[in-house]
Amino acid sequence: MRKMNPVAVSKATIIDRFWSPRQDLVRDVVVPYQWEALNDLIEGAEKSGTIANFRAAAEGRIGGHHGFVFQDSDLAKWLETVGFVLQQHRDEELEKLADAAIELIGSAQMDNGYIGTYYQLQKPGEQWENVRDDHEMYNAGHFMEAAVAYYEATGNRKILDIMCKFADHIVATFGARAGQLPGYCGHPEIELALVKLYKLTGNQSYLETSRFFVEERGREPKYFDVELQKRLDDGRKERVDRRPMDYFQSHAPIREQRTADGHAVRAVYLFAGATDIADEYNDDSLLEAVKSLWDNVVQRRMYVTGGIGSSDYFEAFSFDYDLPNDRAYAETCAAIGFLNWGQRLLQIEGDSRYADVIERVLYNGLLSGISLDGRSYFYVNPLEVWPVVSGRRDDIPSARTRRQPWFGCACCPPNIARFIASLSSYIYSVNENELYVHQYIGSRTEQTFKGGKITVHQQTEYPWSGNVVLEISGGSAEFSLALRLPSWSKRTVLRLNGVEIEASGITEKGYAKIQRIWSEGDIIEMELDMSVALVRSHPELRETSGKTAVQRGPVLYCLEEADNGANLRDLQLSSDAAFEGQFIPDLLEGIYVIESKDAWRTAYDAASTELYTTKRYNKKQAKAVFVPYYAWANREEGEMTVWIREREHGRE
Amino acid sequence: MRKMNPVAVSKATIIDRFWSPRQDLVRDVVVPYQWEALNDLIEGAEKSGTIANFRAAAEGRIGGHHGFVFQDSDLAKWLETVGFVLQQHRDEELEKLADAAIELIGSAQMDNGYIGTYYQLQKPGEQWENVRDDHEMYNAGHFMEAAVAYYEATGNRKILDIMCKFADHIVATFGARAGQLPGYCGHPEIELALVKLYKLTGNQSYLETSRFFVEERGREPKYFDVELQKRLDDGRKERVDRRPMDYFQSHAPIREQRTADGHAVRAVYLFAGATDIADEYNDDSLLEAVKSLWDNVVQRRMYVTGGIGSSDYFEAFSFDYDLPNDRAYAETCAAIGFLNWGQRLLQIEGDSRYADVIERVLYNGLLSGISLDGRSYFYVNPLEVWPVVSGRRDDIPSARTRRQPWFGCACCPPNIARFIASLSSYIYSVNENELYVHQYIGSRTEQTFKGGKITVHQQTEYPWSGNVVLEISGGSAEFSLALRLPSWSKRTVLRLNGVEIEASGITEKGYAKIQRIWSEGDIIEMELDMSVALVRSHPELRETSGKTAVQRGPVLYCLEEADNGANLRDLQLSSDAAFEGQFIPDLLEGIYVIESKDAWRTAYDAASTELYTTKRYNKKQAKAVFVPYYAWANREEGEMTVWIREREHGRE
Repeated sequence: MRKMNPVAVSKATIIDRFWSPRQDLVRDVVVPYQWEALNDLIEGAEKSGTIANFRAAAEGRIGGHHGFVFQDSDLAKWLETVGFVLQQHRDEELEKLADAAIELIGSAQMDNGYIGTYYQLQKPGEQWENVRDDHEMYNAGHFMEAAVAYYEATGNRKILDIMCKFADHIVATFGARAGQLPGYCGHPEIELALVKLYKLTGNQSYLETSRFFVEERGREPKYFDVELQKRLDDGRKERVDRRPMDYFQSHAPIREQRTADGHAVRAVYLFAGATDIADEYNDDSLLEAVKSLWDNVVQRRMYVTGGIGSSDYFEAFSFDYDLPNDRAYAETCAAIGFLNWGQRLLQIEGDSRYADVIERVLYNGLLSGISLDGRSYFYVNPLEVWPVVSGRRDDIPSARTRRQPWFGCACCPPNIARFIASLSSYIYSVNENELYVHQYIGSRTEQTFKGGKITVHQQTEYPWSGNVVLEISGGSAEFSLALRLPSWSKRTVLRLNGVEIEASGITEKGYAKIQRIWSEGDIIEMELDMSVALVRSHPELRETSGKTAVQRGPVLYCLEEADNGANLRDLQLSSDAAFEGQFIPDLLEGIYVIESKDAWRTAYDAASTELYTTKRYNKKQAKAVFVPYYAWANREEGEMTVWIREREHGRE
Repeated sequence: MRKMNPVAVSKATIIDRFWSPRQDLVRDVVVPYQWEALNDLIEGAEKSGTIANFRAAAEGRIGGHHGFVFQDSDLAKWLETVGFVLQQHRDEELEKLADAAIELIGSAQMDNGYIGTYYQLQKPGEQWENVRDDHEMYNAGHFMEAAVAYYEATGNRKILDIMCKFADHIVATFGARAGQLPGYCGHPEIELALVKLYKLTGNQSYLETSRFFVEERGREPKYFDVELQKRLDDGRKERVDRRPMDYFQSHAPIREQRTADGHAVRAVYLFAGATDIADEYNDDSLLEAVKSLWDNVVQRRMYVTGGIGSSDYFEAFSFDYDLPNDRAYAETCAAIGFLNWGQRLLQIEGDSRYADVIERVLYNGLLSGISLDGRSYFYVNPLEVWPVVSGRRDDIPSARTRRQPWFGCACCPPNIARFIASLSSYIYSVNENELYVHQYIGSRTEQTFKGGKITVHQQTEYPWSGNVVLEISGGSAEFSLALRLPSWSKRTVLRLNGVEIEASGITEKGYAKIQRIWSEGDIIEMELDMSVALVRSHPELRETSGKTAVQRGPVLYCLEEADNGANLRDLQLSSDAAFEGQFIPDLLEGIYVIESKDAWRTAYDAASTELYTTKRYNKKQAKAVFVPYYAWANREEGEMTVWIREREHGRE
């Protein structure tokens, strides 16, 4: 026995003012839109070719693949999204569509189980010869995840059988035994997918192959070099590739990695899979390794939005405390992988510090990736933008001031859709005598404990209100209800059936644990401190020296030009600023707006031509208006900044 | 008649504690080193091939050219430097060396006057077919400048005759007449060089061809497109070229340009030549055009160091108020071209605002380009450097933390050497009844006015001391002595023979003009206000919002890690800081060091792992030590910043 309280994700149904509309958007807008995109039915949009690729493969054609080597994964992500959507609400029409897609996938499958339209169409017979670049197992992993989600929603085994056959082929092909390839995919993903498939099917070989991928990666001789040499020996033409081994996280075995390096999405996908392996094999030293990588990210390489990957070049982590705001990459997909990873550590550790980070990502760096109408997306999520720079400085190449309708490389849009559809699995965890409430999202969950089955109704106007009510119904049962005490809440009040409870004595790892026989009608109320807070960064974080960010509850705010005029860098906020705020239902789909009159900006004559002066500019009082960061760029184009200069008074 | 007081550069002999050692360095170290470099005699250095190219061309060989298309210009810059050195002190040995080089250049010259080893060796017969890319006239211009400097120093006509023959060939080849090419060089330089050659020889055709180059540039159809089409029609292979027309300043005729755009060195070289043309042709509208370009640079596109060109990409100007400090380009050669340009405007306008900018560049953004020992050089002159970033972020590609010994593309090192050697021409200007003193540099100049010939001795410990003494000797003459009142000096005291003079009534365009019959023993003393000043930038200059820079006299200061520890961004300086300072002779070859105890930095536990917090970090008082910006990176590698966060007190 090892971990004190390993828990398992427990699903729920979301009924929430903040999130339900977003899930509805995914179901009603994004899923149909994506389906049309996959089928090349959207006029003016970049061609996807995804379904066409599968049709061609099913018909046994050669040539004509369209798109990236990972184009197949778009269909996988769509199907997984559909699975999550159906887990919330069954929908016959949608299932028909999905079943037809599954039929198509099945008919494209080769006799040996292989699915991969790029190789089937373009390079038949060369499968698995370039696992560094060609994403075959990445695509497979997404399909496996889709199979699990769809099966869990519908009980329909068809896609599960297809993917188990594919998994069996991979298990047979890769490994340390004679005749197997000792390789692993250039883009991690299959590691965590195989564990999911194992958990559903009980097929141990999936777990073992996943472990092989995790452990083999980065060992000498490097497999990517070995397979490259083989291709060169076979007379293949190879482009010069400048990507370093850490781009693929294959610079060292994961147990020897001390910092999160290379391509951020790949890194966190790998770390999530490795966390699964540590969990399944009770592997404490592997767990320590991934925990120390987590700490490296959270303590030194994470934006205040929860965004990760601060370098556009190679879409990568850079180095400790290097977090430029205007040149952030902070890819939406990296946020999703980060959430997946945190979710796994949370189940093992039952520690709110993981749930706190999940919450930070959820309400900020993830949600900024999608527009309020669900129709446009950010790949890159900067913390500061000046439109005047956009496209005019080569050293700020990727920041865009507007979300894009869909991308040629459509990794982020379908990924954020599937994440939002899967959100219900981030709210609760259970073990035999505890029910954890990690996230405060209106929802209903049914749980069975010794002695009975109960339903928990969570009601809240979170993240705008700090009041959360949990009501027990449907019977009675003895268990411990573990409520996360968010680290940002300076004072949290708990009431059981109207009577205040002192949390301090019952708090473990950031959760207030209330153990009792819970019965119909029991009500737990929670009041979180929603006062506006100023956030400061670690002094070694150069880019935010002397600046502060405004946060209320879990929501990080920003300044937009729409509310504050241009030249936001010129604004200062007093360190003892007073704030006012209110919820405005018709602004940005309903947000809590924050204002302060304790702001200052430079007064100057617009005709002034003096670039440098020894004079001191006067400052005049100004009003600063803050809106949630996730909601930025949903109005006219303009400047945005999360960090504002802090004006301090007196000398400490 | 137009300008009120057009003046002409007047040479002088420099005898100065600050500058003479730098000129000696150029003469004793740089010139011999460069000669060895040109001859490939330096072990471990990148091959130059310059002299070898000329030898091969002289011998009529084909092939084997080494280096860039502008490799020849390295020899030209060396020869011009030698000319300037000899103008200060004749030196028989050095003349012998130069005469041998001139002999070699002459023997490489083609019968038609052409000199250009790249085409002579690599593409004989294809001369002038790609003037956009191949720098033939750029090289020619540098040789013409060298010829003028060398002739003026020695009276030896040899190189002048060679270059007049080359100029005659160019004059015959380029122009608007039938049979001529209506082209101009991709890299401006010959424009100003032809004017120099005209001024010395009186050959009007040089001036007219220069005017043609200035006026034709940017007109439709664009010559670079025309010649490219011709090459393509001739079946030549051409690489795809992404450089926009403004890279070459050929996006529009110069009269229509409103902002300084494109490659910064090319821009200011062109603008200097255009200023000459405006002057020579009394062309007021062209003068207005270059003055408005000057204003654009000085009011919106110039670093506080005087550095210009804020984009590494295309080594270019970017756009108004875009002056990032860590990603500055601010090429040393651009500073030199900027000085050349300002020098020309100053002669036309007699306005101290040009001399003030020249001074800013001189003591800051130019001088930072060369190490104190004269042996290493910066191409790029950033205003903020963190070694931890160097080579680790693709979006800060060019900033180096150490000067380099010599560059493969050796444009800056020989250029800064020739500039320092030519410095004496920046101190004084004359017209028939005025002697302008633009720069305060210890020196001696002889002048003839109506009624007599006198010598002016200028003595000063500038830039460390604000005391300047000018003593008249050698006779008497009536003229107006015009002393620049630097704009940074808040109170300047003038004394004539010990009696204070009120400057306000006699000041025109920033010069205090003292008209009298000057006689042997007359002494003018000047006391400039050398108190330490805090500089602020225009509020629209985002990158320096809330920051201040320390300046004393003309010298801009910076913080270095060697004096202040790492993480310089964490330092704050009070807006009402008190300063102490002293001259330390054995620090950085003798500098005035500034300290303030009114600085603050964040106090934190080094073991702190919290990346973001709502707590306010305490600040503790700290000492900030400032050294001249030009002297940075002459000790151990470390951080540097010019701008420091300003800590304001009270609410205005």
